[in-house]
Amino acid sequence: MTPGGIGTPAAAVDASPSKLKPSTKLSGKLSKEHDLVLRTFRLLIADLCQQFGGGHPGGAIGMAAIGIALWKYVMRYAPHTPDFFNRDRFVLSNGHTCLFQYVFLHLTGYKAMTLDQLKSYHSDRADAMCPGHPEIEHEGIEVTTGPLGQGVANAVGLAMATKNLAATYNRSGFEVVSNHTWCMVGDACLQEGVALEAISLAGHWKLNNLTVIYDNNQITCDGSVDLTNTEDVNAKMRACGWDVIDIEDGSYDVDGIVDALRQARQSSSRPTFINVRTVIGLGSAVAGQAEAHGAAFGEADVANMKRANGFDPDEFFIIPDDVRSFFEDLPARGERLVADWKRLTDEYTQRYPELGEEFASRVRGEIPSRWMSLVSTAFSDKPTASRASSGLVFNPIAKEINSFIVGTADLSPSVHMTWPGKQDFQNPGLRPACGPAGSYAGRYVHYGVREHAMCAISNGLAAFAPGTFIPVTSSFFMFYLYAAPAVRMGALQRLQVIHAATHDSIGMGEDGPTHQPVELAALFRATPNLLHIRPADSEETAGAWATAIAARHTPTLISTSRHKVRQLAPQTRRDGVAMGAYVLVEDDAADVTLIGVGAELALVLDTSIKLHRNHGIRARVVSFPCWRLFEAQPAAYKRDTLRRHAGLPAVVVEPYAPNGWERYADAGICLRRFGHSLPGEAAYRFFGYDVPSLTAKVAGYLAGLREGTYLRCEFADL
Amino acid sequence: MTPGGIGTPAAAVDASPSKLKPSTKLSGKLSKEHDLVLRTFRLLIADLCQQFGGGHPGGAIGMAAIGIALWKYVMRYAPHTPDFFNRDRFVLSNGHTCLFQYVFLHLTGYKAMTLDQLKSYHSDRADAMCPGHPEIEHEGIEVTTGPLGQGVANAVGLAMATKNLAATYNRSGFEVVSNHTWCMVGDACLQEGVALEAISLAGHWKLNNLTVIYDNNQITCDGSVDLTNTEDVNAKMRACGWDVIDIEDGSYDVDGIVDALRQARQSSSRPTFINVRTVIGLGSAVAGQAEAHGAAFGEADVANMKRANGFDPDEFFIIPDDVRSFFEDLPARGERLVADWKRLTDEYTQRYPELGEEFASRVRGEIPSRWMSLVSTAFSDKPTASRASSGLVFNPIAKEINSFIVGTADLSPSVHMTWPGKQDFQNPGLRPACGPAGSYAGRYVHYGVREHAMCAISNGLAAFAPGTFIPVTSSFFMFYLYAAPAVRMGALQRLQVIHAATHDSIGMGEDGPTHQPVELAALFRATPNLLHIRPADSEETAGAWATAIAARHTPTLISTSRHKVRQLAPQTRRDGVAMGAYVLVEDDAADVTLIGVGAELALVLDTSIKLHRNHGIRARVVSFPCWRLFEAQPAAYKRDTLRRHAGLPAVVVEPYAPNGWERYADAGICLRRFGHSLPGEAAYRFFGYDVPSLTAKVAGYLAGLREGTYLRCEFADL
Repeated sequence: MTPGGIGTPAAAVDASPSKLKPSTKLSGKLSKEHDLVLRTFRLLIADLCQQFGGGHPGGAIGMAAIGIALWKYVMRYAPHTPDFFNRDRFVLSNGHTCLFQYVFLHLTGYKAMTLDQLKSYHSDRADAMCPGHPEIEHEGIEVTTGPLGQGVANAVGLAMATKNLAATYNRSGFEVVSNHTWCMVGDACLQEGVALEAISLAGHWKLNNLTVIYDNNQITCDGSVDLTNTEDVNAKMRACGWDVIDIEDGSYDVDGIVDALRQARQSSSRPTFINVRTVIGLGSAVAGQAEAHGAAFGEADVANMKRANGFDPDEFFIIPDDVRSFFEDLPARGERLVADWKRLTDEYTQRYPELGEEFASRVRGEIPSRWMSLVSTAFSDKPTASRASSGLVFNPIAKEINSFIVGTADLSPSVHMTWPGKQDFQNPGLRPACGPAGSYAGRYVHYGVREHAMCAISNGLAAFAPGTFIPVTSSFFMFYLYAAPAVRMGALQRLQVIHAATHDSIGMGEDGPTHQPVELAALFRATPNLLHIRPADSEETAGAWATAIAARHTPTLISTSRHKVRQLAPQTRRDGVAMGAYVLVEDDAADVTLIGVGAELALVLDTSIKLHRNHGIRARVVSFPCWRLFEAQPAAYKRDTLRRHAGLPAVVVEPYAPNGWERYADAGICLRRFGHSLPGEAAYRFFGYDVPSLTAKVAGYLAGLREGTYLRCEFADL
Repeated sequence: MTPGGIGTPAAAVDASPSKLKPSTKLSGKLSKEHDLVLRTFRLLIADLCQQFGGGHPGGAIGMAAIGIALWKYVMRYAPHTPDFFNRDRFVLSNGHTCLFQYVFLHLTGYKAMTLDQLKSYHSDRADAMCPGHPEIEHEGIEVTTGPLGQGVANAVGLAMATKNLAATYNRSGFEVVSNHTWCMVGDACLQEGVALEAISLAGHWKLNNLTVIYDNNQITCDGSVDLTNTEDVNAKMRACGWDVIDIEDGSYDVDGIVDALRQARQSSSRPTFINVRTVIGLGSAVAGQAEAHGAAFGEADVANMKRANGFDPDEFFIIPDDVRSFFEDLPARGERLVADWKRLTDEYTQRYPELGEEFASRVRGEIPSRWMSLVSTAFSDKPTASRASSGLVFNPIAKEINSFIVGTADLSPSVHMTWPGKQDFQNPGLRPACGPAGSYAGRYVHYGVREHAMCAISNGLAAFAPGTFIPVTSSFFMFYLYAAPAVRMGALQRLQVIHAATHDSIGMGEDGPTHQPVELAALFRATPNLLHIRPADSEETAGAWATAIAARHTPTLISTSRHKVRQLAPQTRRDGVAMGAYVLVEDDAADVTLIGVGAELALVLDTSIKLHRNHGIRARVVSFPCWRLFEAQPAAYKRDTLRRHAGLPAVVVEPYAPNGWERYADAGICLRRFGHSLPGEAAYRFFGYDVPSLTAKVAGYLAGLREGTYLRCEFADL
């Protein structure tokens, strides 16, 4: 140890506020090589931030010893085969410390992560592999993180994926799926509700293959954590069913951390929480302070850090040969893991041909093509709630195809997503007071009233390996606002998750304005790479599910009704749903196009008839379940569907905020206020969604257009 | 006790599953009159659901004894003066059990809550006071609840309001603010992340004036709670800094509950969690089962319940005289509280005239009109990040006016919402490791990384009394998606909360697509009764804050830039913001209208100049900071601003999803994909938001319109 250097207790003590009392005693066991790796790593982080004068150095520097323990000693992975199926999954929930991961990916030999790429951090290179937060598109990154807390829930999903696959496919002597999930969190992640929901579930499910490592530096942007959080974190985790291990000297005690991680991997019955005391920005002039979090240290301080550590202040991005050689065995070790697993799965397939084939297909991310034949081709012509249609369409598929793992945020009786003989995903030791026992092979998940965790966990399930799982979530449409950050993260990561959102529109009724999602369609229609589909009846619901299942890189939200809707087939067409919108009733001599959507399409159809009967107005009718699918159609199809270029005015009817319908219509009978607590039909009447009111409004609009009180260049709210 | 009746242990034991082991022993202390009230209440709930064949009877029935304890013995309130300022606040976080509250409001003498009104529950009466969830508009309701977990956070806000007012205005012998906040929760509320965040904060702040009462019936929609939650709830609450009291026999032990509630009120240092074991739907055939949650019991079962309780099955909505007289003293008791408080505050005002006047003004919900003179009239002409402008405008107001209580979700260094001498809202005993101590009189709140709780707590602060507080929240715009359910609840309840959202648009830069809120404007612009304002520079930011503060019944989200933007005054005008949109550059001979917004307005202005210089195209420019304010303008103003009726095409420039701009423009240079991790300017260039690209796109669009490749009836994505 160089006296006064980054690695000495004195320096750390000087730099940290006295009250913070970070653990600073130097582990007696710190080897010379670990010491050098720690110094090198920390200075590399300082350089990488300093070159662009920004970034997040402090957390990454504080976590250095954890990184050595993970990547050198404990995690099972293959740098040269990054997508090795049975690899351990690592999630950096505190994603702003991404340099931590990027630098270890570089040191351990991930080929794409060159030193040149490392330097792209915060640069203006659009092809950089080192964005400001980890992104799933890049080698070695399991999930995109950044919005805090999401990663914890993703990690729970990844661990569930392992449990489910292991329970389904492993056989005695053939542990074809046996990986562990490691999740790094900072102080902030443990404050976010989505993480707290997921933590509760992981404890409940006894996911002993999950370890959360807490970078406990007691600093967030505002200052010390005790400004906002003085709870007993360990006691809280234990209350949630987790084992807890404390590491006092997280800055240097590599061996202690290794022991803790190994103990966590061997845990027989519970997930493990490792509380590691670290010092943010250790060795810098702002060590232990909020200032170390989100800014470069400045040239002078970086130079000082180098001097104190025996490095040349005029040299940058230095990785000594000894550090290179410390990590050089890892690619070969990884390839041995890959080869061992290949041998194991080959033997497994010989021993269990059918299971082996199914497993291999899951590994390849395929879903058996027979799912298509499982989509009902015909439905009862009785009025049916489209939430029930959703179940009629999807449940036979879920029952047969193991790729689907279906959950609900405590609305099983309402969302119609269960199938006969479904088994719950549960710790097999659970004996619930009411309800069946389950197993890890179960594919029906009771998430409890935790919409946000449900969707973020589902992202983790989907991220386990491309296509291996298609998670399905379900809740009332309104409550997807709780889950919106996770739905967004799924869309951003191109993860196929299907959200079965029921009780849509004011038709959901007496639960009132808190439950009537008048503005929510605007959000999800605006979210890139998300399909928002409102099917009108069973036929369109079949189209919605077929589209959602076929969209292997896109999440879908299927928005269905609580109340019964009339069956409109054969006018409605499932292939029409795939086009986003289609003509339900054509009329070459039409005066107006009426656009109907979802649960209100039948009303629009009836309005078109009444318009003709009472007013001599000829209306064509377009069903418009999905904007994004429609936008993907050729221009000619779009024009022929809407015929606005022919001078035909279009009126849309939907009890949601009109925002965005102005693209397709000249006037809207939409809702620019919150809803009202009334039984569904009464709510429709209260807001004028009945045939007489709609008819009068459309007729009035057309008259107004003739008289000039309405102008076609201005969207009219009717 | 009638053997075999609703009130007997035998009945309860028979009806509940053996494994659930609810506490069923009859308290020896149950008095005859309590027994009658319990029976009456439970049968009334059964009748009210049965009349419409729906609703949520189970929870309300299970909580009956808690209701007696609260409304008869412990809560301080005045049924005939429902808005009595120093009343205890009661929040029903499990809002679906609203009949619980409605019936007690009726029994305790709230004048508006007649028996006739009670019967309006789930009816098609649009003027009903008994919607499916409690609504703030109605007498005796403190906050609108329904989306689970929100109420817990609201209650924390209400308790903070008391603490802050008491610390600010109370003087020795003059406890002018001394009320307690009571919050009822079910199993589900304790699973929701927003509640867990708020619980952690309440413990941190040591809000000993807050009591959460847990209706622990161990049942949710899916079945028994242990399907999804097996944590040690009491241990978790203790780890979060709460006192915990258990009540074993919550079905009958009125006296025990009263003792616990009184103990909670007297708690000297911590909030209290009372864990009350109850039986959902007690006495019905589905007692203790999920089926009791959300459906009427059926005629036969209701009749059986009545018979078992000595009531006539052919009589409905029966309230015996003894029950009426049990509650009849409450209005008079309430008026004595009102009179005592009036006397106290009169004496207080005499003793402390200045303080008394300020307090009275707060009680009346006024803000001192001098706030207007505190809005800066001029700003530096240097480029300034509009987040910094936000601080320049608002902080002098916050400093002077006690109505404002300003918080951040751990982004103090980034959001610019602190003022010199600001004091933190903290438990005065806290000595943080880094950062100043605070007090309950402090008006700056460190919420930690808990965006959702921050906004839901702010709703509670605003709901304490109309206008007494104007809470201000702050975070990155992107993270308001975490808080969106609370932002929505504020808009629904017409609560004036101001959200200072910074780091908007892709200009926020290298943090990348997880932080670039491309679809978020679409959500908040579509949310009813919410002002979403994107100011362009300091002048417009002044207009945004002035508008937000003047909007006493409307929340506002002010969306500002991370990066420096050019000052455009005197072209920009604060009064223009109040109109929503206004003409920045007029040109009678214009070829096109360019619409600019927020941080990109200067780019649009420069584009208009280059269009003229390079292409001879004359462009007028409209600044468009707020849709909702613009929609409120007279039609003539709107037409004169946009001039689309004059055949002028309009092109909007905004790096957000275009959804809704189609109302105001014919083409958009908007963003229909997620962002990219690049420094701000590079991100703008990457997506074509630079003057050369914008100029080329607008010129190309106008040429395309002439040539017919673009049609004005179709919105064009450029």
